[in-house]
Amino acid sequence: MPTFTLDSRLQQDSVHVIDLALCQVRLSRDARYPWAILIPQRERVVEVYDLGADEQATLWQEASQLGQAMMGHYGGDKLNIATLGNVVAQCHLHVIVRFQNDAAWPGPVWGQGSAEAYTDEALEKRRAEIARLAKEAGLAR
Amino acid sequence: MPTFTLDSRLQQDSVHVIDLALCQVRLSRDARYPWAILIPQRERVVEVYDLGADEQATLWQEASQLGQAMMGHYGGDKLNIATLGNVVAQCHLHVIVRFQNDAAWPGPVWGQGSAEAYTDEALEKRRAEIARLAKEAGLAR
Repeated sequence: MPTFTLDSRLQQDSVHVIDLALCQVRLSRDARYPWAILIPQRERVVEVYDLGADEQATLWQEASQLGQAMMGHYGGDKLNIATLGNVVAQCHLHVIVRFQNDAAWPGPVWGQGSAEAYTDEALEKRRAEIARLAKEAGLAR
Repeated sequence: MPTFTLDSRLQQDSVHVIDLALCQVRLSRDARYPWAILIPQRERVVEVYDLGADEQATLWQEASQLGQAMMGHYGGDKLNIATLGNVVAQCHLHVIVRFQNDAAWPGPVWGQGSAEAYTDEALEKRRAEIARLAKEAGLAR
């Protein structure tokens, strides 16, 4: 396993959920949306195409499958998958379940209002839910 | 080849560039960014996971490879790849070259100010550039 250093902003704005074959899954601390963040556990990856072809395929597969499981569990209206990285360069993929009555609909979630903090209990509940969904989807390492 | 009907909003806001193995590539009419839109040429696909596993892999591969080629050509600072679909349900993937001095940096491009129209010449030039990049990347059907 190559070394892997998590960006300090990602560390601060999200909590660890589970490690998959390629990605570390984290949960955004913004309680307004079921919002997972997938970070390939490789050094010096900024763009998706900095990964080899096999790892790129794994990245998208992990995102799609986890997203599908989250949509099934949370009953969302639309799944958003995005890699932007204009603020945090380290390659990371947002996987967000959207609802027609959520805080930013139909706009994207970034830059819309302020993050809403989870209570400790709600954070732990959602963290455990997403870890379970990843395991049930056969994604756990 | 299954039938494929393009959403009317995508039709209106973008122009056809080239057809790849899976996706139709279109160019956003917003001249502020080199902005391609990839639409899987399949009926009734909303979420990425509505496609089969092989087609999902092709979708991401076409987006990554075209994005890499566009980054090389336009010399951008960051590539954004996103499937949101909160407004237009038909599955489509944004592939956008971003610059630190562009109109929305470091925010996402959606919902930032108003689209800037291309001149006819500039639109045709960029359309031809992206078609050429796709061909050179071996992506043309």
